[in-house]
Amino acid sequence: MPHAEPLLLELFGIFVCAKVFGEVFEQLRLPAVVGEILAGIILGPYATKFVNPGATTLSIAGLGAIFLLFTVGLETSPQELIRVGSTSLRVSLAGVLAPFVLGFAYLRGVRGDPSHEAIFVAAAMVATSVGIAARVMGDLRVLHTRVARIILGAAVADDILGMIVLAVVAGLGSGAGVQWAQLIVLFLEAVAFTLFMVFFGSRVIHKMQPGVERLSTQNAPLILALALCLGLSVAAERIGMAAIIGAFFAGLAFAEYSGEWQLAPRVSAINEFLAPFFFFTMGSRLDLHVFDARVIVACVVVTVLALTAKVVACGAPVLREGWLNALKVGVGMTPRGEVALIVALVGLQMKMMSQAAYGIVIFMTGATTLIAPPILRYLFRQDKPEAAA
Amino acid sequence: MPHAEPLLLELFGIFVCAKVFGEVFEQLRLPAVVGEILAGIILGPYATKFVNPGATTLSIAGLGAIFLLFTVGLETSPQELIRVGSTSLRVSLAGVLAPFVLGFAYLRGVRGDPSHEAIFVAAAMVATSVGIAARVMGDLRVLHTRVARIILGAAVADDILGMIVLAVVAGLGSGAGVQWAQLIVLFLEAVAFTLFMVFFGSRVIHKMQPGVERLSTQNAPLILALALCLGLSVAAERIGMAAIIGAFFAGLAFAEYSGEWQLAPRVSAINEFLAPFFFFTMGSRLDLHVFDARVIVACVVVTVLALTAKVVACGAPVLREGWLNALKVGVGMTPRGEVALIVALVGLQMKMMSQAAYGIVIFMTGATTLIAPPILRYLFRQDKPEAAA
Repeated sequence: MPHAEPLLLELFGIFVCAKVFGEVFEQLRLPAVVGEILAGIILGPYATKFVNPGATTLSIAGLGAIFLLFTVGLETSPQELIRVGSTSLRVSLAGVLAPFVLGFAYLRGVRGDPSHEAIFVAAAMVATSVGIAARVMGDLRVLHTRVARIILGAAVADDILGMIVLAVVAGLGSGAGVQWAQLIVLFLEAVAFTLFMVFFGSRVIHKMQPGVERLSTQNAPLILALALCLGLSVAAERIGMAAIIGAFFAGLAFAEYSGEWQLAPRVSAINEFLAPFFFFTMGSRLDLHVFDARVIVACVVVTVLALTAKVVACGAPVLREGWLNALKVGVGMTPRGEVALIVALVGLQMKMMSQAAYGIVIFMTGATTLIAPPILRYLFRQDKPEAAA
Repeated sequence: MPHAEPLLLELFGIFVCAKVFGEVFEQLRLPAVVGEILAGIILGPYATKFVNPGATTLSIAGLGAIFLLFTVGLETSPQELIRVGSTSLRVSLAGVLAPFVLGFAYLRGVRGDPSHEAIFVAAAMVATSVGIAARVMGDLRVLHTRVARIILGAAVADDILGMIVLAVVAGLGSGAGVQWAQLIVLFLEAVAFTLFMVFFGSRVIHKMQPGVERLSTQNAPLILALALCLGLSVAAERIGMAAIIGAFFAGLAFAEYSGEWQLAPRVSAINEFLAPFFFFTMGSRLDLHVFDARVIVACVVVTVLALTAKVVACGAPVLREGWLNALKVGVGMTPRGEVALIVALVGLQMKMMSQAAYGIVIFMTGATTLIAPPILRYLFRQDKPEAAA
């Protein structure tokens, strides 16, 4: 459309730059997502000023975040969660608690940050990104090993715990301090929402299945899934959570039908189109001027805490399977990803987080994502790869 | 994201309303797209004021138009165009010329509309929507018949001719009158762009194929196709055409690889998400107050001209195959669709078209789309359906 040209040019520029950086990172055997964020940092308004994402682009990036979490939800089968058993659950729970407590203690106790900011940064340290570890183990063809299954199972549980943590911290609202009564209400609300979606969401879809398949609309299951994704995003915000939590639970409800209805490849196509705008704008929001000596120290400390907390806490529950396996599980759980970024974005938008704290989270996310793959490759070097399918 | 809630609510409302109206229309064996437009008319700011699409939603609707035409391009194989032979080409060419000449003559000569407005409305009368006829013939399982092949082949050629017509009229710019020198330059530009994309676009992709498949980026072909879609949209606007023309040609370049790289189902998923916003906002822009007696007469006359021009001009080239077959081809070519709507939108945005002329095009598009399917079903009633696959 004639008047939309600046928008199209902006979208084209962002899409191509993000993907070129992503490809360069992939060629260097580094995660593409870090490249896409770096594209935003380098080309964004705080550095070379090549692209300054406008309001519409930021809205499209927000839709990207929603579809990112919708995709994560679609890949998080509640049935699988029930199957993975107690080992994965223990790994996950320990791996959520340890970095949160350590992160909060350091930021509030040592650095003296305000509670709400310390809580947001600590929350960003919680959730493992299943994608990075899965990709590395997939490349090494060791997804069949018991350790890989524990990691993937724990990462599934981790996503759900991460969502509960985000629901609680995002629900703290714009209040100056932490109100414990409100916190407890939000926690119960988030847990109830989770349990409802895990146990009933899937059943509701199951009951609707014959009806959906009778509809005349083409691709009715996909349309229904998209409508629920948008609807639960709105609903989540209405009850004081972040929109993406609703999108995640919408994905969860459809996870069992993702294969049958071919939802995963279709939704991931929407994701392929929208996600680069999310990662790029995450980078473009990073003000490089905040990195003074004190913030750089905090970046390094938070990253070290984020790494050691996961390695120790996630490794400990599987120590009886040998220290090498424990180390593999621990390292496999260290990469943070989209959930950390979204916690940071929500914090920044709610003004619960300073630019410096935002910088710390971006640094920690990028660093944990970059450090884990080479270590994982080293630890798995003696596992026999599964025969190619 | 906390600040995006009004947008999400708006998107949710539009998506659900458009799809519910679409489903109701499908149940009544009427084309869903008319239902989606009607949802916009009824719920939009000129009627019940239930939803008033904001700037971001209109931008997203614009992206919807781009993906709509990208999808049409992906389904328009240049190879097939070469195969369908001269019959389809003659049907297509006659079916483009006749409604344009008749429409322009009526609006300029009888109604005394300004030339630029008459040209835009006439241009909207040109392009057949292949989707409607294909859907009806698919439902009746007669896609294997010679008549169906002629219709589909002609509709393919029709899309390309329609794009050339749109390129020329949209390129007229905001000038008050029609400048013939400029028109000729634009025509040559559009033809050159078309020939280049039809004959070389595909070859360029062919040459790039080994490189694309070596890329480390996941879904590299899809990413490349999306980048080209955005890039050619920007390029088309730079040389004075509408963005969607670039998107269409980007689709055309990838059409040969659509199957191999599984582009069609993936791009159509993006389309499923974005297109309802396009159709709904098309309806929501329709000011119902313009429909006075004089405009209603024009609506009816233009619709009758749009129908008869296609039936006669597209039927004539196949008359030697019997009048029933000629009638089938003629009726099969009558439904107008997304290209007509986009011509109207471009005209409205460039202020080359009044609200009344916009109303005439919307009416004509809806009416031709609604009238064709029952007649087609009647005409094809004695054809043997192909055995179910």
